[in-house]
Amino acid sequence: MARYDFTARRLYVEAPLAADARIELNPAQSHYLRNVLRLSDGAELLVFNGRDGEWRVRMSVAPQHAVLTALSQTRPQEQGADLHYLFAPLKHARLDYMVQKAVEMGATLLQPVWTCRTQAERVNSERMRANAIEAAEQCGILALPRVVEPERLERLLADWPEERLLVFCDEEADSADPLTALRAAEAAAPLAVLVGPEGGFDPSERAAILAKRRVIRVSLGPRILRADTAAVAILALVQAALGDWRR
Amino acid sequence: MARYDFTARRLYVEAPLAADARIELNPAQSHYLRNVLRLSDGAELLVFNGRDGEWRVRMSVAPQHAVLTALSQTRPQEQGADLHYLFAPLKHARLDYMVQKAVEMGATLLQPVWTCRTQAERVNSERMRANAIEAAEQCGILALPRVVEPERLERLLADWPEERLLVFCDEEADSADPLTALRAAEAAAPLAVLVGPEGGFDPSERAAILAKRRVIRVSLGPRILRADTAAVAILALVQAALGDWRR
Repeated sequence: MARYDFTARRLYVEAPLAADARIELNPAQSHYLRNVLRLSDGAELLVFNGRDGEWRVRMSVAPQHAVLTALSQTRPQEQGADLHYLFAPLKHARLDYMVQKAVEMGATLLQPVWTCRTQAERVNSERMRANAIEAAEQCGILALPRVVEPERLERLLADWPEERLLVFCDEEADSADPLTALRAAEAAAPLAVLVGPEGGFDPSERAAILAKRRVIRVSLGPRILRADTAAVAILALVQAALGDWRR
Repeated sequence: MARYDFTARRLYVEAPLAADARIELNPAQSHYLRNVLRLSDGAELLVFNGRDGEWRVRMSVAPQHAVLTALSQTRPQEQGADLHYLFAPLKHARLDYMVQKAVEMGATLLQPVWTCRTQAERVNSERMRANAIEAAEQCGILALPRVVEPERLERLLADWPEERLLVFCDEEADSADPLTALRAAEAAAPLAVLVGPEGGFDPSERAAILAKRRVIRVSLGPRILRADTAAVAILALVQAALGDWRR
């Protein structure tokens, strides 16, 4: 896919952005701009902070670090749609990959979920946030997705807000095809997508999920998908049927 | 996703499969079964060769290698649908990943395509085949996808079979949303999906593609997708709208 202007570098920053604002970069960011992107004194790039839109800035190189000066706003702030992505955490590189993909696909909140058959035993939330930032920089969004702490499935279900529609990826669903199932939903509802571990859901977990009032149960075809493949696939169907891929 | 029986190991073999057939494994396969899967003498697993269906076999361990004996057929041979996946090759790990994902998503032929803006300069076809086999073993299919040698886009278009519908992922498409575009197609046609490089297509390439008689041009939403994300996303939409994800 293209649409990516490889000449425009985008960087997430935490500082406020406004005309003439001066943004001190931390050592990692300075290193990235100078040694990875090989930008030199006076180079222009784009920055965003999730609150003040996207700005064109100019870099000045000081001995120990780099400083950016905001020139002009290139896009006003926008909020992503309301799409929560709930997933059983994977291990290592595949979790990095899944987080990046979920952000590209428009998830606005990433919620790791402990289920009976989840394989990973820990989640490095800082690493997940770093992956989310990297994907946000690359895919062009202005609102940074939230990465929240892992939670047990039963606890999430106990506190589930009644109005949020849950798209439940379940290999044992024998309902209609996934697009028919998704189109039966109200498009305007806040959405959540749940993808389980590669061992699937326990029968008691399945029953607890299906007991919720607004659940769409979908199966993703006849082949066995890895969890990170299922993530992109279900988010594509949701965005195309209910989300921001419709024009 | 689940549906994967983690207790049933599946291995692709080249030898013919029939009742009581004896299959000599090569050293890499013997190593995999004995040292990676840690199977011991007498263990049972599943094998397929792309021609004779899936068979349950029993392993016997000899000093230098392992031998399998076919016990019974578990599934008759089936052919996948006719879905060609055409893609600008990526570099290294991301190409491995894309090949595995395309197989999980049901592609039956993998065709690397040289375009003006393709970044990779070589393709290791043997490595692609190894990745396709690994994904086929994991995702449960019986027909091994074909991996063909890279070809120039203009050459592929010159020889394009008139009856094959080409789903063209194009970030500059301003047509209707992707599902509406896909649903306008005849579901029974042989299909191909084309995903370009992350630099997009050259205008002359785009014109040559759109000059073909049966082309569906689709855009995958407002965010910039990495090429490997676009691969899974478009294959999910195609399978759900036209392919084998419909029941």
